Amino acid sequence: MCPHALIPYKPKNPKTRLSAILSQEEREKFAFAMLEDVVSAAKDAMCTPVIVGTELFDSEMVQVTVTDADLNQSLNEILPTTEQNILIIMADLPLADEASIRRVTSTTKDMAIVPGRGGGTNAIYIRDPKKFHVDYYGASFSKHMKIAQDAGLSVEVIDSFRLHTDIDEDDDFVELLIHGTGKSRAYLEELGFHLETETGRVRVARKR
Amino acid sequence: MCPHALIPYKPKNPKTRLSAILSQEEREKFAFAMLEDVVSAAKDAMCTPVIVGTELFDSEMVQVTVTDADLNQSLNEILPTTEQNILIIMADLPLADEASIRRVTSTTKDMAIVPGRGGGTNAIYIRDPKKFHVDYYGASFSKHMKIAQDAGLSVEVIDSFRLHTDIDEDDDFVELLIHGTGKSRAYLEELGFHLETETGRVRVARKR
Repeated sequence: MCPHALIPYKPKNPKTRLSAILSQEEREKFAFAMLEDVVSAAKDAMCTPVIVGTELFDSEMVQVTVTDADLNQSLNEILPTTEQNILIIMADLPLADEASIRRVTSTTKDMAIVPGRGGGTNAIYIRDPKKFHVDYYGASFSKHMKIAQDAGLSVEVIDSFRLHTDIDEDDDFVELLIHGTGKSRAYLEELGFHLETETGRVRVARKR
Repeated sequence: MCPHALIPYKPKNPKTRLSAILSQEEREKFAFAMLEDVVSAAKDAMCTPVIVGTELFDSEMVQVTVTDADLNQSLNEILPTTEQNILIIMADLPLADEASIRRVTSTTKDMAIVPGRGGGTNAIYIRDPKKFHVDYYGASFSKHMKIAQDAGLSVEVIDSFRLHTDIDEDDDFVELLIHGTGKSRAYLEELGFHLETETGRVRVARKR
């Protein structure tokens, strides 16, 4: 019952909302470090990671290339051909760990969904992928709940801040520096990012 | 084994970081609605809520007044006199529900801690309150983990986005409007707040 974990990944010019504080090269290295953290957690949780991207990159990880850049179209071409249970998990969840992923894949419902920050969807586990299709971007959590309902699929919403916390902006670095233990946290520290506590709030700062 | 749930609460001029978008009266009503949501969830989880504040307010809820405004001093005067297990939970967690609180109070460790956003601590469950003291503000999650370690107490960190999501800023309203089901969500909607989806992100807006 080890599901494949599909991990959409964009190696070139990722995480553009971090452009103000990271160069393109730094963003690419950081995104790859986060991917490695997610892959590591997925393996710990007995999933088989498969990277879904628009181009191959230099890595020993199992990769699938898709001809179209659109995430929804790519995944919706894969799902109907998939015979076994599947996990779709985003590559920007460096706080993912074995326990949180196991909570997702051990649901007793037809599906499990993990909401991301701001209405997104960070992970979907589907027992029978033929019955579901994805609709990412915007308020995708609500859309996915609706798609599941329309398909008659029971859904468990997984209450995990580790899988809820996608890293999109520098404010999110605070969570990674506090709770992260993997390569992406180490890379941020290598770049000089650290926590500063002042007047009751923890902020992130960068040494140059 | 029903623990008391201590809920620190400030009825006058709360949530000042919302001052730009809510009047003082609105902030007071909103803070009270969030408190009601937390109280309701605590009761669902078989806890006995006790509001800890610097002044009594008009309510049938069980209240304890403390002479000093400092949260740490107030709680640290209560803990050594407490004979049974106790939950300390913040009043600004309107996504709290029965399941998430039960995960906290059913820990098999000496304590359970729920990290809040930005390094804070949103809930602490202590089996033997005499052995622990609190140190809120700033990076309190790290401080509480250290205090527990120094006291030789085993700790479970509860991975819950519902209890992780404290509502401090208007950006946080997005989570409340998506995942909330209680009085504080209803009050925000009454004030005209609603979700707007544009270019891939969900934002909050207010009708006037």
